[in-house]
Amino acid sequence: MDRKAIAILGGTGDQGLGLALRFAKAGRPVVIGSRKADRAVTAAEKVRETISGADVSGFENAEATQKAPVVIISVPFEHTAGTVKAIRDVLAPPQIVVSMGVPLATAIGDGPMRMIGVWQGSCAELVAGLVPDGVQVVSAFQNVSAHRLQELDEAVECDVIISRPKEARGAVMELCALVPGLRAVNGGPLGNARIVEGMTALLVGLNVRYKVPEGLGLRITGLP
Amino acid sequence: MDRKAIAILGGTGDQGLGLALRFAKAGRPVVIGSRKADRAVTAAEKVRETISGADVSGFENAEATQKAPVVIISVPFEHTAGTVKAIRDVLAPPQIVVSMGVPLATAIGDGPMRMIGVWQGSCAELVAGLVPDGVQVVSAFQNVSAHRLQELDEAVECDVIISRPKEARGAVMELCALVPGLRAVNGGPLGNARIVEGMTALLVGLNVRYKVPEGLGLRITGLP
Repeated sequence: MDRKAIAILGGTGDQGLGLALRFAKAGRPVVIGSRKADRAVTAAEKVRETISGADVSGFENAEATQKAPVVIISVPFEHTAGTVKAIRDVLAPPQIVVSMGVPLATAIGDGPMRMIGVWQGSCAELVAGLVPDGVQVVSAFQNVSAHRLQELDEAVECDVIISRPKEARGAVMELCALVPGLRAVNGGPLGNARIVEGMTALLVGLNVRYKVPEGLGLRITGLP
Repeated sequence: MDRKAIAILGGTGDQGLGLALRFAKAGRPVVIGSRKADRAVTAAEKVRETISGADVSGFENAEATQKAPVVIISVPFEHTAGTVKAIRDVLAPPQIVVSMGVPLATAIGDGPMRMIGVWQGSCAELVAGLVPDGVQVVSAFQNVSAHRLQELDEAVECDVIISRPKEARGAVMELCALVPGLRAVNGGPLGNARIVEGMTALLVGLNVRYKVPEGLGLRITGLP
């Protein structure tokens, strides 16, 4: 396992691919995971074509999971539980799982400006309930626009509100530092993901009302 | 009723008083309401001492309500339903009620970084369920720091995410324009107050973690 590698499950989707491009551009090895290995391989090729010299590979999710100390779950919310169940046997401490999912109501055929209630409180807490003991789950990246991630020549003007556990937070803050314009903000306990995930639904609505299809972001003001 | 007047129920509290100071400074007549008339009168005097020539008066809540087309509810969450019930008989269209409350867990003796679940979904929706037919409820100002409102020489760097009804939103956007640094953002349907209210709990936590007792704010980035 390459200690610098970052696995992105669902790295074939818009937001996951955006992160893959950014991390690869910053010189980090990226492992793209997908339910189907061939889709992951194709996405990895796409990244290598865009960024010459990029160290990016593609694998089926469980195989990708075994190749990185940090595993980002970037699948549609309705596939989150299934994806985590499919990789839990190969997950082990000190690996860190990053939840970036949001329980948007698209999961039940309603719109992306609304959310569904999750028994555990948030996508991140649902994920935390499924990983093996000792594997830490951090919530991050929900509010970052997929489109702006893929505009590689521009900074992504957005704060990333990270909900910890404390020990794992640093590793994810460091990932934010790889992407120009992203700023890591210490969002407190994992339960706060309930709020941060909701902010994605609010931003989706703002994107529509203000006609900004490339996606808005947010900043906390007054931070020292 | 003075068409320019703004009633602030709970205008004796930090955030309500902050708004009273700002609106008075901008030259608008302000009517402070409280459960006890004498407390409202004292708060009004305080504003007049700070801002010479300010048109500010104090009354018991129901009397204050009758004196303005816009009535801001700025009482602690646990007093919200009681306050609205106490004024509903004197509320009538086209008056607008502004909900700025947040169901923080302080209402049940837990901390201000957490929320309690409200059957209606949010404080704003609870208020909307209690006002007479035709009175419109708008959600706004939750995330604005009381301390920064009271620092009259400085701009309050914060977006105000306003959840409508559409027809009433304009009146509240106009109130934001009275306070330097506040920017009104169209936050969509009233149900989105669930998210915006949650953001207050998140900001309270950030204030503590980042040691910014004067309060942080937030901005949506990328708006046209």
